[in-house]
Amino acid sequence: MDGDTLREECGVFGILGHDDAAALTALGLHALQHRGQEAAGIVSFDGKRFSSERHLGLVGDHFTDAATLGRLPGNIAMGHVRYSTTGETVLRNVQPLFAELEVGGIAIAHNGNLTNGLSLRKRLIAQGAICQSTSDTEVVLHLIARSQRTRSADRFIDALGAIEGAYAMVAMTRTKLIGARDPNGIRPLVLGDLDGKPIFASESCALDIIGAKFVRDVENGEVIVCEIQKDGSISIDSFKPFKARPERVCLFEYVYFARPDSVVSGRSVYAARKSMGINLAKESPIEADVVVPVPDGGTPAALGYAQQSGIPFEYGIIRNHYVGRTFIEPTQSIRALGVKLKHSANRAVIEGKRVVLVDDSIVRGTTSLKIVQMIRDAGAKEVHIRVASPMIYHSDYYGIDTPDPDKLLANQYATLEDMCRYIGADSLEFLSIDGLYLAVGGEKRNPKAPQFTDHYFTGDYPTPLTDLEGRDKNDPKQISMLREAV
Amino acid sequence: MDGDTLREECGVFGILGHDDAAALTALGLHALQHRGQEAAGIVSFDGKRFSSERHLGLVGDHFTDAATLGRLPGNIAMGHVRYSTTGETVLRNVQPLFAELEVGGIAIAHNGNLTNGLSLRKRLIAQGAICQSTSDTEVVLHLIARSQRTRSADRFIDALGAIEGAYAMVAMTRTKLIGARDPNGIRPLVLGDLDGKPIFASESCALDIIGAKFVRDVENGEVIVCEIQKDGSISIDSFKPFKARPERVCLFEYVYFARPDSVVSGRSVYAARKSMGINLAKESPIEADVVVPVPDGGTPAALGYAQQSGIPFEYGIIRNHYVGRTFIEPTQSIRALGVKLKHSANRAVIEGKRVVLVDDSIVRGTTSLKIVQMIRDAGAKEVHIRVASPMIYHSDYYGIDTPDPDKLLANQYATLEDMCRYIGADSLEFLSIDGLYLAVGGEKRNPKAPQFTDHYFTGDYPTPLTDLEGRDKNDPKQISMLREAV
Amino acid sequence: MDGDTLREECGVFGILGHDDAAALTALGLHALQHRGQEAAGIVSFDGKRFSSERHLGLVGDHFTDAATLGRLPGNIAMGHVRYSTTGETVLRNVQPLFAELEVGGIAIAHNGNLTNGLSLRKRLIAQGAICQSTSDTEVVLHLIARSQRTRSADRFIDALGAIEGAYAMVAMTRTKLIGARDPNGIRPLVLGDLDGKPIFASESCALDIIGAKFVRDVENGEVIVCEIQKDGSISIDSFKPFKARPERVCLFEYVYFARPDSVVSGRSVYAARKSMGINLAKESPIEADVVVPVPDGGTPAALGYAQQSGIPFEYGIIRNHYVGRTFIEPTQSIRALGVKLKHSANRAVIEGKRVVLVDDSIVRGTTSLKIVQMIRDAGAKEVHIRVASPMIYHSDYYGIDTPDPDKLLANQYATLEDMCRYIGADSLEFLSIDGLYLAVGGEKRNPKAPQFTDHYFTGDYPTPLTDLEGRDKNDPKQISMLREAV
Amino acid sequence: MDGDTLREECGVFGILGHDDAAALTALGLHALQHRGQEAAGIVSFDGKRFSSERHLGLVGDHFTDAATLGRLPGNIAMGHVRYSTTGETVLRNVQPLFAELEVGGIAIAHNGNLTNGLSLRKRLIAQGAICQSTSDTEVVLHLIARSQRTRSADRFIDALGAIEGAYAMVAMTRTKLIGARDPNGIRPLVLGDLDGKPIFASESCALDIIGAKFVRDVENGEVIVCEIQKDGSISIDSFKPFKARPERVCLFEYVYFARPDSVVSGRSVYAARKSMGINLAKESPIEADVVVPVPDGGTPAALGYAQQSGIPFEYGIIRNHYVGRTFIEPTQSIRALGVKLKHSANRAVIEGKRVVLVDDSIVRGTTSLKIVQMIRDAGAKEVHIRVASPMIYHSDYYGIDTPDPDKLLANQYATLEDMCRYIGADSLEFLSIDGLYLAVGGEKRNPKAPQFTDHYFTGDYPTPLTDLEGRDKNDPKQISMLREAV
Repeated sequence: MDGDTLREECGVFGILGHDDAAALTALGLHALQHRGQEAAGIVSFDGKRFSSERHLGLVGDHFTDAATLGRLPGNIAMGHVRYSTTGETVLRNVQPLFAELEVGGIAIAHNGNLTNGLSLRKRLIAQGAICQSTSDTEVVLHLIARSQRTRSADRFIDALGAIEGAYAMVAMTRTKLIGARDPNGIRPLVLGDLDGKPIFASESCALDIIGAKFVRDVENGEVIVCEIQKDGSISIDSFKPFKARPERVCLFEYVYFARPDSVVSGRSVYAARKSMGINLAKESPIEADVVVPVPDGGTPAALGYAQQSGIPFEYGIIRNHYVGRTFIEPTQSIRALGVKLKHSANRAVIEGKRVVLVDDSIVRGTTSLKIVQMIRDAGAKEVHIRVASPMIYHSDYYGIDTPDPDKLLANQYATLEDMCRYIGADSLEFLSIDGLYLAVGGEKRNPKAPQFTDHYFTGDYPTPLTDLEGRDKNDPKQISMLREAV
Repeated sequence: MDGDTLREECGVFGILGHDDAAALTALGLHALQHRGQEAAGIVSFDGKRFSSERHLGLVGDHFTDAATLGRLPGNIAMGHVRYSTTGETVLRNVQPLFAELEVGGIAIAHNGNLTNGLSLRKRLIAQGAICQSTSDTEVVLHLIARSQRTRSADRFIDALGAIEGAYAMVAMTRTKLIGARDPNGIRPLVLGDLDGKPIFASESCALDIIGAKFVRDVENGEVIVCEIQKDGSISIDSFKPFKARPERVCLFEYVYFARPDSVVSGRSVYAARKSMGINLAKESPIEADVVVPVPDGGTPAALGYAQQSGIPFEYGIIRNHYVGRTFIEPTQSIRALGVKLKHSANRAVIEGKRVVLVDDSIVRGTTSLKIVQMIRDAGAKEVHIRVASPMIYHSDYYGIDTPDPDKLLANQYATLEDMCRYIGADSLEFLSIDGLYLAVGGEKRNPKAPQFTDHYFTGDYPTPLTDLEGRDKNDPKQISMLREAV
Repeated sequence: MDGDTLREECGVFGILGHDDAAALTALGLHALQHRGQEAAGIVSFDGKRFSSERHLGLVGDHFTDAATLGRLPGNIAMGHVRYSTTGETVLRNVQPLFAELEVGGIAIAHNGNLTNGLSLRKRLIAQGAICQSTSDTEVVLHLIARSQRTRSADRFIDALGAIEGAYAMVAMTRTKLIGARDPNGIRPLVLGDLDGKPIFASESCALDIIGAKFVRDVENGEVIVCEIQKDGSISIDSFKPFKARPERVCLFEYVYFARPDSVVSGRSVYAARKSMGINLAKESPIEADVVVPVPDGGTPAALGYAQQSGIPFEYGIIRNHYVGRTFIEPTQSIRALGVKLKHSANRAVIEGKRVVLVDDSIVRGTTSLKIVQMIRDAGAKEVHIRVASPMIYHSDYYGIDTPDPDKLLANQYATLEDMCRYIGADSLEFLSIDGLYLAVGGEKRNPKAPQFTDHYFTGDYPTPLTDLEGRDKNDPKQISMLREAV
Repeated sequence: MDGDTLREECGVFGILGHDDAAALTALGLHALQHRGQEAAGIVSFDGKRFSSERHLGLVGDHFTDAATLGRLPGNIAMGHVRYSTTGETVLRNVQPLFAELEVGGIAIAHNGNLTNGLSLRKRLIAQGAICQSTSDTEVVLHLIARSQRTRSADRFIDALGAIEGAYAMVAMTRTKLIGARDPNGIRPLVLGDLDGKPIFASESCALDIIGAKFVRDVENGEVIVCEIQKDGSISIDSFKPFKARPERVCLFEYVYFARPDSVVSGRSVYAARKSMGINLAKESPIEADVVVPVPDGGTPAALGYAQQSGIPFEYGIIRNHYVGRTFIEPTQSIRALGVKLKHSANRAVIEGKRVVLVDDSIVRGTTSLKIVQMIRDAGAKEVHIRVASPMIYHSDYYGIDTPDPDKLLANQYATLEDMCRYIGADSLEFLSIDGLYLAVGGEKRNPKAPQFTDHYFTGDYPTPLTDLEGRDKNDPKQISMLREAV
């Protein structure tokens, strides 16, 4: 609510050759809903026309009735769920985006963020392109439209060659479904199979929901082109058109974003999170009576912490499942009562106890402060916070919405003691960067070639940040923007 | 309802330099609502950003509350009301359309139709343009974006140089409001003035509603550029950048489209319609007891017919003002009852009478047939139809929605007698083409240089019909269309 | 908008024995829409259950699709259109109202107003009744529910015996459709016939729309009970259970409310209005160039005035058909421009002319003032107002919404000259009460036994005004009201 | 979805004397949202008028903005959340219900169900009462309105004396807030205190959310009347007007309905559930590798089972938090894929393991069957189901929605083995009735005077079931029902 979480921007899904393509895409997106709750869209192709439905809101609110799915005919479909960073959750920004090319239509959907999107946009406008959205995905669409290549797959690769940053992208044409991952593989993308029909999805949980098989991760820098042949068979070809770079998956996928039942780059997210809790218990033990997870993110790590430490695991905080996105904070006079809309303390397991609270991460610390107070109000004797990831110092530019760096807890207080005092806990400890690497990958961080991207902890960005250069000169506010509520 | 009317596609309005620009635009569009009831949009500029609101429905339903107008700040605004020909009344087709150019933003709104829009669209797509709407107005926007000229007004003129057909167009940039009319002046556009602030509007009635003064018609082929200078003064410059052609205003503006209180090209629409009735009475007199207008279009002509003939004018047909666009025709079993949703006969003035029914025009004749039956059911002794315009034989390609030619009454029956028999009247007469020219312009039609465009009556089209050439080869269905309900 | 009109509160319609009962009721209500635009409802019975649909808004907005009509099965149906006087247009006030009685369900719909409704309501509450609406129609429902009679028709008559005021009421049970008119017949109600199926409707125009025959007026004080017999035949029985009183139809039905094509108590409304204009021209002639109606109410009277006086009739005021109820008045700064949302002057027939403006009635005069100014702004040399009804001095308590008496023009100024000066006209004349009686009934007013009710002109109320007695003691605000927006 | 859960019908909340009464009621209802998600309503009184807002949907969707709360002024407020059993989720059934009495208004809200509601309704209708809802709460309102007592609190007690069944009821008048619990105390109700202002709420968690203190449970058969005195102080009086009966709280509040952080009749719900798991492990041990809860209901019992058995507790099933009520099941062809909309298996902790699945209860068994299959598909070697409550054989008539008895798993199969085979598990065990009593109350069931009501397990109903007697004669379908979609 108050910016005290990181947010993933998007999830993508596509399937080729299945008669229920749009319905399966809706289910896949539903399983990816945790990656973006503000809007969803699906495009399908039925041999004659592309059809599209895009809506603000949840997949389950808009894509589940027969009427809507009936407007999305065809055996190729792809979709997108979105969390928007800017507050401009307007319909024309909702993906997939579509363009009618000379060679036929193409639709694309994108999870990630370009680090040279603004620079490219300016160049395209100077060349006469008309931008309808404020999304950098539209830049990719223009690059495709302007490519001099003949085949649409080649045009797509052409466009990818011009962009920098993070992307897991799915595209579809009249006969093809294409999946692509950026050269570092920052954002995840997997290839699945349902009765011989290929699927791309941001996470493996989107395969599980429809009973599809996990085939493999799309590799960093790989473009996979699936095409329906004239005889109805489906070809699957892999391309590596760009200069090879080391894979560096985003660590926050393991810490917070991905669903626990997903397997990202070959590692169970749930197992990784439990290991973070185990490593945290090894690094920062404490004498206590009960281990309590901060729901829901902290639960697997808390279980690991409890198992490693031998301290009993208990549900000391109950989450209210009915907190919608629309629940507005009450007035100041009511807030003063210490209202707990989202969580409440379970006094039965807290009263008189020394409590270890385990959370997945701390961003600004404002929520932690409230939770510590709530636990104390419920009668805890001591409250010790253990965080299953390192301190966050830096902004992300690859598709995660982060607060301004000066709002981050780690930048507001000079020492761990000061942070602990602000939050009101009896002790506060974070998992070390090596503890995190060990939990996820089994090895410590290799400083010369880090196995993951960890820039929010370390400032080590895996790509150039082109749009940030000479920022003052290129003030984005110089552009004549159109504001339109739709 | 059943295609038995012609429909105007659009109305435009813009104002420069007034603090209430958006509210005045809403009022102007409200006065132009008869030119398009399906959607409306307004764009404004407040010195920093362009703002836009576009909605399906009436101006009065969406643009009258303080909240909406508050989202349209600034002292430049323009708007558009739309009737869509194709049934695709989707939001992305609603005007004004906007583009962010290298030199700043530009918005355009268009009344009319291009006769080479499809050809231009194909060429633009081949060059890498991405089209979001199915409106040919977007083609103009792309031409502006791709122009090599530096100043936005020059780019706009550049784009107009490439298009053919009918247009009354309004455009706005950060400092300018521009009005333009096609070389033949087929669609109307007037220049007004409110306390020194220039206004463009499709009809003079949009000036009257806000107490603005009528200055003059924008001339055929003229581009008028109004600009706020740095000192706050407003300059108004006229350009005639295209080869001179004779003015040929669309006669249907006088016959049916324009509001009776408007003055189009210097002629009162109401006076013209009364004269049509007078001339009709001279050309086709009949002995009768009562002159009854077919509301609302036929009323001024009926009054003229009554005054010329000396036969009393009476309201023999009462119109139900509550017929909304949403009233669905009832089921067949109910239709068989002869339900009159829109009109009802006023038996008190019809029973036992010889009735002259005066209508503005006949398109397919299906409505006339029902009205004659209704008048007979109410006890009329004789029913004579007098139509205040000639027979319609041809399609319009300049912004009027016409049925397929083979559906037109004039093409379905070989003789006036056959038409009369189909409709069930005792007699049927149409105004002659010269009678119409005399009523509107005071002179007969000059066959070598007709003073108006009258192609629906005569087949004499004032411009090339480029998109119709070789139609089979250029099947528009070859384009990969995107269907999206928004 | 600003209370400068009188408003009819309601229209009713019912049909018995027809398979399309609900659809025909929707059409009948559509024809009665001028009697109430704020809400509409239909109840039907299919042999097992009563079904009901009630909506805020127009009939054409809610009762025209197959889905809605499909939720209203059965061959008995009745409905209601409503204009609410109080601003409390909430759904639970929308009629028909329904009650489940021991003997089966009953639904009622009411046009009119009770003059002892509040007194009855208090007594019923004291007896333990629970009132859900603020409508006095619910009082009738409670009286029916508490009647000791066995048969529902007898219970209905029992209830009518307790109420005072004006009512045209339609009721339905599982087998009956009942129509009733108050002892004075203040509000109109007609009996119609469609292929042997009886219909009740507020006005004959609701019969015309579905091609039904007019049978006769329901008489004052008459209750007509139509019943489907076991053999499928329909019986129609007339009762006159109350003490006989003279018929006194409300004159405003002729002056303003009823549709011109309706026949009320045997008199054509259109013909009556034209006669009002003729009598007005005889009573108050003036030298002028043009007679202009104030649309739409003044049009037939203006035609009569023109025919009688020989002065040409012209459309000098054009009405904007797109003024919805939702069009909010613009801000003060814009209002200062003299915006004409509803009407505009047709300069072509006004400029330089001496204009006779004919209106149906004047309530507060605020609209007249604006229209005179508009006509003068359009260049009229003189403006003379002729009003086709007498001055209004008194409130109505029979179903017409009237402003507070001290807001009425006739009570604000002592002399006709002062009123004329306020309005800004060159002369102002009203039709005399005898002129009105002659136009409607053919005879002058009989002061001992007036043929109509004319209390708003004369203060001669046809019934006791029970609720007004001792008003201070019985302050309705002492009741614990529930305010609920639905 | 398919009736394989039991559903609580309602939750109630009220507060007296607080300036933020409506906002606090909204928060209290939000904490009680798990007791009813279909509709919510709040009534307030501001010294002059009662105000009401009632909406279909969640509290967080309708009662959180300043505008809505601003329409609920005053320092007395009460509210209700509802789950409807019949599918008739229409607005007029949404509580609180209100009546205007001779002595002033009264509003009531009810959690529970009457066992003589239909009998009372018939008698009331015979006496002339008009019923607007199909809710039996309206019956109570009529009894209050018809009581001969003078004071509204006495009338309320009068009405309670006539009803049988289960109720936790809150009522409010202009100065009072009243809480009442049926003679057996079947449904819970607590008294709280916020800075001296009394509160009634279904569960203590509604006190926690606003930081209010828990005072005590309202006792079975007790009526507590809180009243604002003239000097502003608040009196609280307790009445026991009915014949004393033993308290028998509904066991399902502990098994499933109440929130784990609530304390019901002095017992922590979370602790009771953990004890159920512990007792279950004692009664039905099994050799296995992992204990997996069926989320969310089975989680505390699973934790107890794991702690008692020493088998590791793991999240083997991941719940999708975005399953809304509106998510429609996909088509048959898609269902055949085994779609898991609500849950998915966490393969990382299941593959190759012997799994103990712990669930709170089994109703029809259809969900269990799917979950077992899902766990097997994820590679489990064995699947053992342990249910933390006894088998369900009988319908509830006290406010819990239960399937027809013949649909219950326990009635469909003769033996535990058959049930186990149907579900597809390797073993299946239920907690014994004594095991449940021990977990909740610390003692075995006393067959002569059971400490709780457990009729769904035992058939031992704590009250007469009046409406069921002679059911055929009193066919509810003989009543003329009104069906209305609002």
